[in-house]
Amino acid sequence: MSLSTQPYKGARDFYPEQKRLQSFMFGKIRQVVHRYGYEEYDAPILEPLELYLAKTGDEIVNEQTYTFTDRGGRQVVIRPEMTPTVSRMVAAKRQELGYPLRWFSIPNLWRYERPQRARLREHWQLNVDIFGVASTQAELEVILIADQIYQSFGATHDMYEIRLNSRKFMDFVLSEYLGLDGAQAYSMAKLIDRMNKMERGVFLAQADLLFTPSIREAGALERLVKVLDAKKFEQLPEILQSHATIANIRATLQLLEDNGVRNARFDSTLMRGFDYYTDIVFEVFDLHPDNNRAMMGGGRYDGLVALFGVDPVPTVGFGLGDVPLANFLEAHGLLPNLRVETDLYAVIVGDVQEAAQRTVSELRSMGLNVAIDLSGKKLGDQFKTAQKKSVQHVIIVGENELAEQQFKLKNLLTGVEETHSLSRIVSIVKDHRKTDVFDEAE
Amino acid sequence: MSLSTQPYKGARDFYPEQKRLQSFMFGKIRQVVHRYGYEEYDAPILEPLELYLAKTGDEIVNEQTYTFTDRGGRQVVIRPEMTPTVSRMVAAKRQELGYPLRWFSIPNLWRYERPQRARLREHWQLNVDIFGVASTQAELEVILIADQIYQSFGATHDMYEIRLNSRKFMDFVLSEYLGLDGAQAYSMAKLIDRMNKMERGVFLAQADLLFTPSIREAGALERLVKVLDAKKFEQLPEILQSHATIANIRATLQLLEDNGVRNARFDSTLMRGFDYYTDIVFEVFDLHPDNNRAMMGGGRYDGLVALFGVDPVPTVGFGLGDVPLANFLEAHGLLPNLRVETDLYAVIVGDVQEAAQRTVSELRSMGLNVAIDLSGKKLGDQFKTAQKKSVQHVIIVGENELAEQQFKLKNLLTGVEETHSLSRIVSIVKDHRKTDVFDEAE
Repeated sequence: MSLSTQPYKGARDFYPEQKRLQSFMFGKIRQVVHRYGYEEYDAPILEPLELYLAKTGDEIVNEQTYTFTDRGGRQVVIRPEMTPTVSRMVAAKRQELGYPLRWFSIPNLWRYERPQRARLREHWQLNVDIFGVASTQAELEVILIADQIYQSFGATHDMYEIRLNSRKFMDFVLSEYLGLDGAQAYSMAKLIDRMNKMERGVFLAQADLLFTPSIREAGALERLVKVLDAKKFEQLPEILQSHATIANIRATLQLLEDNGVRNARFDSTLMRGFDYYTDIVFEVFDLHPDNNRAMMGGGRYDGLVALFGVDPVPTVGFGLGDVPLANFLEAHGLLPNLRVETDLYAVIVGDVQEAAQRTVSELRSMGLNVAIDLSGKKLGDQFKTAQKKSVQHVIIVGENELAEQQFKLKNLLTGVEETHSLSRIVSIVKDHRKTDVFDEAE
Repeated sequence: MSLSTQPYKGARDFYPEQKRLQSFMFGKIRQVVHRYGYEEYDAPILEPLELYLAKTGDEIVNEQTYTFTDRGGRQVVIRPEMTPTVSRMVAAKRQELGYPLRWFSIPNLWRYERPQRARLREHWQLNVDIFGVASTQAELEVILIADQIYQSFGATHDMYEIRLNSRKFMDFVLSEYLGLDGAQAYSMAKLIDRMNKMERGVFLAQADLLFTPSIREAGALERLVKVLDAKKFEQLPEILQSHATIANIRATLQLLEDNGVRNARFDSTLMRGFDYYTDIVFEVFDLHPDNNRAMMGGGRYDGLVALFGVDPVPTVGFGLGDVPLANFLEAHGLLPNLRVETDLYAVIVGDVQEAAQRTVSELRSMGLNVAIDLSGKKLGDQFKTAQKKSVQHVIIVGENELAEQQFKLKNLLTGVEETHSLSRIVSIVKDHRKTDVFDEAE
């Protein structure tokens, strides 16, 4: 019986065409985060299980991680998220690092879930974090970076929306305003986090179950609904509108508006899944009707670094996944037609392989990326191979060409065929490289 | 009790300084392989266990893999090598792809081993493969690429050596010339693979144990030693010198010499660990006395793609690890002093944070990578932070500077301080970027 050629379920093979798209996306992303002074880091994909037990959230750790025992008897996890790892790394060098510390990474992450269109078992995720800034300038900066990332692909503000909430505010709503105890408030927060994936009736019934009789009789469900249905601060119950815990949401929204970001709004239903957030949380929503979902999210988590026994460090960060980004670009027609890295394909006529190799070496030393056909097939078949590989230019190398040092260059896109010296060929092909990179598809 | 800040044993955290080195190495590598027309691919880090059972080799699969059962009951492995994966991917699109097919990848790989200096549990490895070429032109091309990679870092041929052998030749030696049966020949090949890590006496004793009495009496050990001690073809027993199975080694060495690679030689002790090689195998050895070891290796494996039930594809490929490469560059003094990506650090005087942000935005839109100090600390402390981050230039932004649009720019390397307009600052800093990138350390 032969082996299966399928990749592991819910994970992707990246053939050159897909890898090219990934490199294009990550290249743009790196450019934006470097612009803001962020430095790249990385870490092992395996971490000890303990790292996630404290603050990642029960559902993820108990049901969705790839956890196993290694040959040395240690419980390890293939990282489901990067935030605990980066907090660990900062804690290890707490004193040596300079703050504000700006770091990013593009790790692959694993979750055991039923694979869906925008949620796979393996995905890549940009992680951007700023450490050491307690003011909302930190929220402003990372949200501006997220905004700039979408803009860098040609997106406009009508294509997506930035939504903000505050864990501190929601804690106040659940604990003080509604009067839930700690465990009830935790369950209610988890329920709200799932509410947009549920029937409203089911949500209301489950929410109601979390109230004790006295809280229920005090009209808690009605009050909760009023909070969750508020699309603006003004629609909140009056006592909440000017509460201290809402101040940072107002401040962040104002700063964003001052910086030209007008597609941001308050959203009291936004919770985020992780337990470590301490105040502002935010998400960017794709507004395309076929693709209406959160594409990235983050928030402030001031307590995580201190779990490693060092002084706390105020931190704001976000994660932005490759799959929702690719879906967004596709839905909005922002995917460019990406050029292959190979500039030129050398086809060989007759028994001149060794001499052709020298010619190709010369072209490479002049800066071209050149693949040579070593199949010994007929000329027409060699041209077909060049086409399969989407290489734009073909050079024909035969006995006469080598003798005269004049070579036929064919542009497979336009059909134009010209005869030139090697150096002329190099400059023609390089010119195309400049103009065609990331050109829009017709 | 607080959490540990240590990474998983035998794996590395990449702080920005280490990540910069990795990006530098992989950047150079990508440039070289693109020059030869290779396209990048990738695949999930998890593969089904079956993929490795056929041809990876018992020791690796049974003792060194990270194998576990996922939540769906499937036995999976964190990939210990990339060759089975790339063969799977080629087999899946056997008919659609154009040959010669040239692919590369830089995956992270995992092996459960006792961590040593040049062998960690997680490492990255360049994989270069050419599919569809049965002639030694394929061996020539991939070995030239390996050679070019070392050259691209400034290495010279006296720093390393390329060693070649042939599995076909060794099979002939073990089976026909010495008369071992299949199982004995397999064990002997594995023993030879480890011989350079053993005392010679121990090796000889263990080798002797693999002979049956009649083979032993025919002088097998002496004949084996003569083969393994041969440094050139001429030192082999005469009957082997011109044997057909040695022809491809001779041909490859000749082609390499014709292409200016004179540091390649025959090495009859070279086996390589994997079971899938079918003819030529090769390694590149670091000749530095402190670092004398194989840095990369590969060979021809014509049978692997066919395991997936499609027609066989002749293939030659190699793997080149990040750790031996970094050790090589360090030992030979080839590590450059790498520039941080952040061009400019903005320090703030007085209560002008919001206005300073606008100035910094302007600098970014003119193409500079700028980090802004949001700490509110004293000027001297902000300068210290810039130094900690190794940013070369600092711009001072205060009320006067904003009013006059003239800003102090300080070069922290030279100590030079000048006052300029923003656009002048941009061109000064960009000029430094050009000259200082990858500048050699003093």
